[in-house]
Amino acid sequence: MTIIVSATVAGRRVKVAWQHGDAAEFPFLWLRDNCLCAECRHPGNGQRLLDTLDIPDDIAPRTVAVTGEGLEVSWSDGHASRYEAGWLAAYALTPTARSARRGYARRPWGAEIANDLPRADWNELERSPAAERRFLARYHEYGFGLVEKVPAESGMVVEAGNRFGHVRVTNYGAWFDVKSVPNPNNLAYTGLGLGVHTDNPYREPSPGVQLLHCLEADAPGGDSILVDGLKAAEDLRAEDPAAYERLARQPMPFHFWDKNADLQARQRVIETDHEGEVVAIHFNNRSAAPLDLPLDEIEPWYEAYRRFARLLRRPEGEVRFRLEPGQLLMFQNDRVLHGRDAFDPAKGRRHFQGCYIDKDGILSRWRVLEREAQP
Amino acid sequence: MTIIVSATVAGRRVKVAWQHGDAAEFPFLWLRDNCLCAECRHPGNGQRLLDTLDIPDDIAPRTVAVTGEGLEVSWSDGHASRYEAGWLAAYALTPTARSARRGYARRPWGAEIANDLPRADWNELERSPAAERRFLARYHEYGFGLVEKVPAESGMVVEAGNRFGHVRVTNYGAWFDVKSVPNPNNLAYTGLGLGVHTDNPYREPSPGVQLLHCLEADAPGGDSILVDGLKAAEDLRAEDPAAYERLARQPMPFHFWDKNADLQARQRVIETDHEGEVVAIHFNNRSAAPLDLPLDEIEPWYEAYRRFARLLRRPEGEVRFRLEPGQLLMFQNDRVLHGRDAFDPAKGRRHFQGCYIDKDGILSRWRVLEREAQP
Repeated sequence: MTIIVSATVAGRRVKVAWQHGDAAEFPFLWLRDNCLCAECRHPGNGQRLLDTLDIPDDIAPRTVAVTGEGLEVSWSDGHASRYEAGWLAAYALTPTARSARRGYARRPWGAEIANDLPRADWNELERSPAAERRFLARYHEYGFGLVEKVPAESGMVVEAGNRFGHVRVTNYGAWFDVKSVPNPNNLAYTGLGLGVHTDNPYREPSPGVQLLHCLEADAPGGDSILVDGLKAAEDLRAEDPAAYERLARQPMPFHFWDKNADLQARQRVIETDHEGEVVAIHFNNRSAAPLDLPLDEIEPWYEAYRRFARLLRRPEGEVRFRLEPGQLLMFQNDRVLHGRDAFDPAKGRRHFQGCYIDKDGILSRWRVLEREAQP
Repeated sequence: MTIIVSATVAGRRVKVAWQHGDAAEFPFLWLRDNCLCAECRHPGNGQRLLDTLDIPDDIAPRTVAVTGEGLEVSWSDGHASRYEAGWLAAYALTPTARSARRGYARRPWGAEIANDLPRADWNELERSPAAERRFLARYHEYGFGLVEKVPAESGMVVEAGNRFGHVRVTNYGAWFDVKSVPNPNNLAYTGLGLGVHTDNPYREPSPGVQLLHCLEADAPGGDSILVDGLKAAEDLRAEDPAAYERLARQPMPFHFWDKNADLQARQRVIETDHEGEVVAIHFNNRSAAPLDLPLDEIEPWYEAYRRFARLLRRPEGEVRFRLEPGQLLMFQNDRVLHGRDAFDPAKGRRHFQGCYIDKDGILSRWRVLEREAQP
């Protein structure tokens, strides 16, 4: 149990010391803004009622007191706030507490993961929240997972998508058939091999998660390939920081069009956040549009791009396997690249169905399962 | 008509001069990579067949020739390419050509736009592609539009969403009812006023476009408010570049939870792209979670945030109007903030239905209408 031993005012911050030894400072404005009382947050739904803008600039405590539960502050605006010791420790602004809040850890992987794929059985997921929780934990660590014994029926991919999250409808519909057809509007609908790629970088936003469900796989060839784009990006950063930096900064245009659609977007091949963490990979040779950068940036950009493309093609980075009917592959489309070997549509059938879901729904589902598993 | 008068090789580029006076240089690799022949691009669907990685590093023209149609290049890898003069002019890497490719222009606005709202009539949209094209052009310029005479029936908002794009299903379902209810899981479902905000910054991705359809509006109060977040961000950039820069760099955490969901995301209040253009605004007091930055960044961030919040509250930035039954408001949720005055649920009914669609679908629809309108 977290216990506060002292609280003192220093400058415009309250410094709290815990019995276990740590201490943390809380700026006045932050502390007032995060009051958890029923007047400041709706007691039913936890949403904020206090508007940050309504706090006076010169807000300051009149008194600060340590109680059995935590901290009590009486404010210069007449308000009184109470903070539980555990809540303060959890939201502290120290490097240690901040790094503990980083969310789930992602584990970069290569071909070796083929021996231990994140996998689950559809019926087991239906039966056991604990099994689903374990599966979703590994799915989020590695960016993909294999679900087995999903009934090989048309449309089941949508049921699976809506089980884990919410299916995202596009101009392809709620789901799409991946099989060889005449006059395809997309090369996926041929027997051609497809180099590893992320789907639909021409969308805004591009799809966060993809599901691919195998219904038939008689045709010779057509094995599936997965590559961890996060691993390749980290390797590029280590080997050639300038190339990494360039792909993280200068976007690439993508374009898809057919009779009913005209989709265009610019994406950075390696998308990073404000702290330099990789948050998405966009890589798709098929739908690349002519590069649109200042003239003098073209050659260095191509050099960086080709270097990254070679990393994505390394055999030691590839997981290869043959999806069999009833198997469903789910992967983070903004991290894990997928591809396939060529197959011969004249010698057998190969029929997958795919759909997209958003990232937030499946992450929310995992959090709720974790929450419900708390003692 | 675009006519090439000369093509010469200089360094590792081909320099093309047009009859109308301009000239542009095309790097060898870029030019080879963008070959448009049936071997390099699928003739049916335009997708790329040539893999950028398969082009030799030392690719160079053997010969370059100007023809009646444009440019012919015979390459050192044995391939032959033809480029139409107009295509080369359209995709040239000069500053002029690049800026012409910038996509649609966004016009920042303030209260004055109330006299000339982008609006259309539902029946007219159904009848006339030209009317829809004009409406979508203004919608994209200003970030919102009002559709009138939409039948005031439950679920029509989904029909409208799927007309313009593709409805995005979330844990709220395909659409949500905005009315006062007991034990609301969201403050939107009370009679409280709501300061201007963007919806659902706790999602990843956060919704790109929102539709709000008025079914009933008898309750006193409840007027709608719109504010252009792009305008406020540009004003902040001009008035206080350091505050702007801070909000464009350091993210803010958001959180929503109820019995079935736990949604968390970090967003930059002002999201900018690699060239410093504002691409999204995320602003929502209700779902803000405790700020999570290094301790010394907290106070300056709050100062920047409160400065931006004050700009968003300026009366001269607000468009206010009362949505009447049958009116439907559609807005870019990542640009235009919306809010409402308080209303009294004891004195009348106020019932809206809302849904989200993705940005790419409606933009694609507009492009297709523009394409079909070409002579």
